[in-house]
Formats: sequence, C-alpha cells, structure tokens
Amino acid sequence: MAFKPISTQTLQRMPMYLNYLKDLPVGGAANISATMMADDLRLNDVQVRKDLAMVGQGGRPKIGYVVKDLISDIEHCLGFNNIDSAVLIGVGNLGRTLLEYEGFSECGVDIVVAFDVNQSIVGTTINGKRILPVSKLYSICSRMKIKMGIITVGTGEAQGICDLLVKSGVVAIWNFASVRLNVPSNVFVHNDNMTSSLAVLSNYLVERFSTNK
Amino acid sequence: MAFKPISTQTLQRMPMYLNYLKDLPVGGAANISATMMADDLRLNDVQVRKDLAMVGQGGRPKIGYVVKDLISDIEHCLGFNNIDSAVLIGVGNLGRTLLEYEGFSECGVDIVVAFDVNQSIVGTTINGKRILPVSKLYSICSRMKIKMGIITVGTGEAQGICDLLVKSGVVAIWNFASVRLNVPSNVFVHNDNMTSSLAVLSNYLVERFSTNK
Repeated sequence: MAFKPISTQTLQRMPMYLNYLKDLPVGGAANISATMMADDLRLNDVQVRKDLAMVGQGGRPKIGYVVKDLISDIEHCLGFNNIDSAVLIGVGNLGRTLLEYEGFSECGVDIVVAFDVNQSIVGTTINGKRILPVSKLYSICSRMKIKMGIITVGTGEAQGICDLLVKSGVVAIWNFASVRLNVPSNVFVHNDNMTSSLAVLSNYLVERFSTNK
Repeated sequence: MAFKPISTQTLQRMPMYLNYLKDLPVGGAANISATMMADDLRLNDVQVRKDLAMVGQGGRPKIGYVVKDLISDIEHCLGFNNIDSAVLIGVGNLGRTLLEYEGFSECGVDIVVAFDVNQSIVGTTINGKRILPVSKLYSICSRMKIKMGIITVGTGEAQGICDLLVKSGVVAIWNFASVRLNVPSNVFVHNDNMTSSLAVLSNYLVERFSTNK
C-alpha cells in the first residue's frame, strides 16, 4: 500500500466525522451526503468532500456515502480498529489523568505500562496499568516492540526520555512537555500541552479586556 | 493599550520560553541572548527573536534580554499574572481530570465551579470545586462575570452548552468536544481534543507499518 500523506488538519477533523457517523440513528438511512454532514457539523461541504476523499473511494452523485463503509474507512485510516500499544513516562498529575482516561481504547491505543523514577509510586497500579522504574524502559519497549511513547515528564527530563524511547524502537511520540524534542527524521513527534492552549485563551482575554483594567 | 494580535503559533510557544526562563539557575546571569535560548530550546534564533519582539521591547545588541523583565513581559502577555475565573461543563472522565489538574493556577486560570446534568454527582466536590446543576449556569456565570468556559460534554450536548455560555457573557471557550461550535464573531473558541492528537499519531503508525501487516 502506497503512503498517502494526509495533512494534520484533515486528520484532526477525522474523529469528528467518525463520532458524527457513529451517532447517526440506528436503522436510519444507509447513505449520507457530504452536504448533510457539512450542514450538521457546520463545515464547508467542499472541505468535507476533500477530507473524505483522502480515506476512501469518495461519495457517489445523488447517493452519497455508504455510512458503514465510511466508518470503516475512517477507522482504518486512523488505525482505530487496530490496537497500538503505548507506554507513558512520568506519572505526575498529567500522567495520572491520562492513565485514568478511558477514551484511548476507542482510538486504538492501549497504554500497557507506565514508567517513573519516583520510588514511592513504582510498583503501584493506576487504572490497571503498572508503574515501573524508568531503568526498565529500554528492555520492556524493545521486547514488546512498543511503537508509541507518551511523554508527561517535566521540561528538563523530556529530551533524555525521548532519546531512550527512540533507542528502544519507539517511532511515534506524543509530547506533553513544553520543550521542542530533538529526534531522528524517522521519528514522529506530536506536541500537545494544556499550557499552550491556556496561553491562547488567556491572551485573548488580556487583549480584549486590557483597556478596562 | 492597542490590540496587538499575536499568532496562535507564537502564543503556543510562549509557555515554553516562560518555563525555560523560570528554570534558569537562581543567581545566574541577569541577561540572556536569543541565540542561547534558541540553542537550548532547539529553535531557530530568528524565530525566537521574532516571538519575543511580540511581548516586550526586544533584546539589546551584545546585552540580550533582562531575564526578569522578559518573564514579566511574557506573563503579562499571556495573562498568567492575572487570574481569570473559568467554569467547566461536563464532569465525565475528561472533565474530572481537568478539575484535578493542578497546572491551571500557574497559567492564571481558576476553575471556580463545574456543572453537570447528572444528579448523582451534582452537589459533590472535586479538588475543592463544587459541581452544580446546569440549570444554574446562566445565573452564576452572569453574576460572577465569568469570561472563560471549558466544554467537556459529549458531541451532542456541546452546542447547547456553548449557546448557554455565550448568553451568560462567556467570551472565551475551550472546547474539548469533537464538534465545530457555532458562535457569534465576538466569541473566541479554542478546540482541543485528545482524539484529534491520537488520530495524527495513529495514522502515522498505520501509514508507516501498513506494508508490514
């Protein structure tokens, strides 16, 4: 299968389409048009058609998309029908909340184990996931062929953990630390942090209300 | 003070600069250069200079930036030195994890109260924050002049909650639901959801390993 690159923006919209399609009434119409989806999701219908063209054969004139095929195509594209094992490193507040989050399995991701350096939590279990010492990271990830790592350590530790993940064979890193990670070109990093989102929202309020202060 | 628009990308990098500056050794140099920051953060120094020019007077040749002034300028720009009260709606798994997250106060955001429709949790407290019925949202937000709302309800409920927030005077919405919200032009929405991030990461693994399956 040839590599078909899909833009990050398109990929980020896919779960919205998937949720929408799965929420359609059971026993309703077997087909759906891009126009109806666009109206319901308040998107442009040209955009919806372009996005959906990336994952399947596209809709047919006057017929639209077969709902169950489109669901299956999106799940296949996103890998949501195919469980990837992941590890998480850094069981602080954020790490703990991710370990407790129940939404990962729907997205085809299973955090199989977490790592931390803090001896007082090593050996414990959160939401059924064991916390192991970071010294075991290399042997476990390489033996289990783990491909995805979730970094929730502090800024200062993130690059060291990243290097260890890469050495262990991890190729997709979800980085919650506020630092730009240095990785080989064959490793993919997706950065995400709540502070960045709060920065955008807080700045909006500062700018909007600064004349009133 | 005139409105000085800063791009979302620049704003999202600001917390990284702020963390870096705050982590510098106490009693170290009073000044820092953009080149040193760029090297340490693995960014381009032109980028760093452009970003920092948005928040203060800029660095001086051969002197650089005064660290404490730069910290103060960034905090002011982001509103991190100025607490904004926020409300959260939807105390499911994600809402609960956000209520328990301790990092908000550092970012100048205080979730003062949460709302849910589930009678079994209304009246309880999570991390010191009371859970109230959604029927009280309008009166509380308008009386307390709440400007920020965090939406962690399901896809189907998000627009209704959004409309209620807007009617109550909220102008900045952090939306975790996988749906595009329809808001008046004077309301700002920042979308964020874990599923979108997982979509990007999982697709990378699907594409990378699809020939091996």
